[in-house]
Amino acid sequence: MKLPSSLIEQAVDAIANFPGIGKKTALRLAVYLLQNKQKAYNISDSIKKMIEGTKYCSNCYNISKNNTCIICSNPKRDKNIICVVEDIRDIMAIENTMQYNGHYHILGGLISPIDGVGPSELNIEKLMSRISESGVEEVIFALCASMEGETTSYYIYKKITGFNINITTISKGISVGNELEYTDQVTLGRALTNRYSFTQTLKE
Amino acid sequence: MKLPSSLIEQAVDAIANFPGIGKKTALRLAVYLLQNKQKAYNISDSIKKMIEGTKYCSNCYNISKNNTCIICSNPKRDKNIICVVEDIRDIMAIENTMQYNGHYHILGGLISPIDGVGPSELNIEKLMSRISESGVEEVIFALCASMEGETTSYYIYKKITGFNINITTISKGISVGNELEYTDQVTLGRALTNRYSFTQTLKE
Repeated sequence: MKLPSSLIEQAVDAIANFPGIGKKTALRLAVYLLQNKQKAYNISDSIKKMIEGTKYCSNCYNISKNNTCIICSNPKRDKNIICVVEDIRDIMAIENTMQYNGHYHILGGLISPIDGVGPSELNIEKLMSRISESGVEEVIFALCASMEGETTSYYIYKKITGFNINITTISKGISVGNELEYTDQVTLGRALTNRYSFTQTLKE
Repeated sequence: MKLPSSLIEQAVDAIANFPGIGKKTALRLAVYLLQNKQKAYNISDSIKKMIEGTKYCSNCYNISKNNTCIICSNPKRDKNIICVVEDIRDIMAIENTMQYNGHYHILGGLISPIDGVGPSELNIEKLMSRISESGVEEVIFALCASMEGETTSYYIYKKITGFNINITTISKGISVGNELEYTDQVTLGRALTNRYSFTQTLKE
């Protein structure tokens, strides 16, 4: 694809860095920006301000205005349970369920050799020190049900299995409201393997 | 959707301004940028540079380094044929075919009352003056086969039909290589209505 100017080419290349956006879509977006200058300035400025102004909790790597985020500094939350997630979107999703009252730990990604992400790129060391320092009783893995998510869970599991703590994972199964025939076979297989006592559901 | 900081909220709102990107995708992209600061700076800077550095041809509104673009200033191209397009991507697509040797005119959008785009937002006045000033022989509409594209073509047609010029439109029909049964009925209907002499195809 030959572009009419190097400035547009650089912008298209940069926008194509977004996950899930290819060169063609990036060009469409760049042309849109050229036709909507005010929006373009707004996007450019707000991205820079977000990157420069966002601070992270020194404990769990959640977004935070202060040194410690509102979850870690809330005395009503159980600091002995740590839910391990990939990024802040997962915290938002779990908080929305209103079913969890413990702390979090953001990894900042998943182990993915194909994308060049190894364990050292993730916030795993800090998780280890949190577990070893305080009286953590349970670590919950709440990661994607993907190859990367399972690899990451297993890697951390091997590292923390020596500590005297409960290591759990959120359950995989059919979605609430879904029909069996539309559930993929791997998920259905997992749901069968991980079946649990029906009396347990009566309490939910 | 409650976001953890106003800076992230502003960036998500700005990114969601991109056509085809909703709030959820914008949040995914914003989180990606927070995890990839260098790429974020790159996107922010290159968008600003593109907006500030891009100049337009004073004749046809194509991207141009000088006052007149490389197409308008090329003496080998036929300046008496003007192909009317929506934006630079269309010029790139048509140039790629290597089937066209005339000039262009970029409208910068299509008439779309639902998006608040009226004729005055488009570069129609300049097209009128180009036609009235020089010896233009043909105007070709090469706009989307959508409601907006057809409305725009018709609007301009009514404005220029008084001039003694040929007004044509690129043909609508089944794609080369496509099977009839997979072609939508409107396109197939058009292809039938616009049928032309088979002997003409023997020359192609």
